[in-house]
Amino acid sequence: MTRFALTVEFDGRPFMGWQRQDHGPSVQQAIEEAAFAVTGERVAVHAAGRTDAGVHGLGMRAHLDIAKPIAAFRLMEALNAQVRPNPVAILECVEMPEDWHARFSCLARHYEYRIVNRRAPLTWEKGLAWRIAADLDAEAMHDAAQLLVGRHDFTTFRSVHCQSESPLKSLDRLDVVRAGDRIAVYASARSFLHHQVRSMVGCLGLVGQGKWTAGDLRDALEARDRSRLGLNAPPDGLFFVRADYP
Amino acid sequence: MTRFALTVEFDGRPFMGWQRQDHGPSVQQAIEEAAFAVTGERVAVHAAGRTDAGVHGLGMRAHLDIAKPIAAFRLMEALNAQVRPNPVAILECVEMPEDWHARFSCLARHYEYRIVNRRAPLTWEKGLAWRIAADLDAEAMHDAAQLLVGRHDFTTFRSVHCQSESPLKSLDRLDVVRAGDRIAVYASARSFLHHQVRSMVGCLGLVGQGKWTAGDLRDALEARDRSRLGLNAPPDGLFFVRADYP
Repeated sequence: MTRFALTVEFDGRPFMGWQRQDHGPSVQQAIEEAAFAVTGERVAVHAAGRTDAGVHGLGMRAHLDIAKPIAAFRLMEALNAQVRPNPVAILECVEMPEDWHARFSCLARHYEYRIVNRRAPLTWEKGLAWRIAADLDAEAMHDAAQLLVGRHDFTTFRSVHCQSESPLKSLDRLDVVRAGDRIAVYASARSFLHHQVRSMVGCLGLVGQGKWTAGDLRDALEARDRSRLGLNAPPDGLFFVRADYP
Repeated sequence: MTRFALTVEFDGRPFMGWQRQDHGPSVQQAIEEAAFAVTGERVAVHAAGRTDAGVHGLGMRAHLDIAKPIAAFRLMEALNAQVRPNPVAILECVEMPEDWHARFSCLARHYEYRIVNRRAPLTWEKGLAWRIAADLDAEAMHDAAQLLVGRHDFTTFRSVHCQSESPLKSLDRLDVVRAGDRIAVYASARSFLHHQVRSMVGCLGLVGQGKWTAGDLRDALEARDRSRLGLNAPPDGLFFVRADYP
């Protein structure tokens, strides 16, 4: 058996999410079926993060074990050929030691959330960004975001379906950057709770519109109560950017 | 009659191009039908440039004349509501003097051509960029591109269907800029011939792959012969970015 690490880009729009589902297509299934077509082996593909339906990947990391002797580069080319027409691309494929695990070895995960701040609807970015019509104060969003950085109980920002053992997480970075009518939110942590990034971005959107103060955001965090969440942002604007390993 | 100038963004993928066609949908038709739904008037929409099938718009300029009294902001909002589900958005709408013409008053047109330089296929950018698998030398492309800047007979870089009276054009800018695996080509001129940007980018792609030297590009230009064109780049990566007016 050889373990291969994959760097995967995908368009989340047609998928029910990363993880295999009974009721619809998933990125995991698309790659596992491509691997079967290439090797004849039924493999399991493990990822650094299990993204929701409609969430995209720029540099998701994953691994799979293959018995058949095959070079990493040839495996990458064959997976890319077989995964069509799914909007999934293997950007990199490298051999790894057997104890390297895309999920458990991961030291940090980086997300980007893309907002388009304008009245007009989206065209070629439809499904790839969250359009907010009301003028957003990105500086106020960035300042408020710093209240969430650090080690906190993120119960308010956690889906009721979250399977994590603890709501305690350390958020390393939450930066809000405007460029013209584009606002990007950069979030980094060792790991995130289910819906955490979307929940934080949703509340920052309220801050940006002046509907919430920074104090409202702090109160929501300290309440540790999901019913105090202001807004869960849509999956459209969320991109899994990168995972870091030792 | 009031003349309104529009700034239009559109996703070129579902359209036969900007201009109205008998055999398929066009951006012009989508906006004209939205204007009819809003005002009950059969109007003609004139644009700064007539883009090809599959070419996108970030900031196309256009104008239309409306008899019914309506404020510019309300017209914009109503057009955006009525143009759905077409991937067309009116970003700005302003009143203009009657002698302002989106096409004839235009002093400069700016295009961007987006290349993704990697082996893996495109996912969420499919139809929004030209993927070139072979390693490109962007510096060599930029250096060669400077041979095309200035006033030249661009017959080699002109579609046989071009309706321009003269093949003489002044190219003001042709810059090639790499950022990671993204290469952008920025082209600016008072006006372009039909297929000129795609034809120039196609040949620069050959230079980037080392299949053509800068000398080959100069020879192709000086030949003034369409059959000497190396390659016409696909429409996917081409975006009409901006038009300038007095």
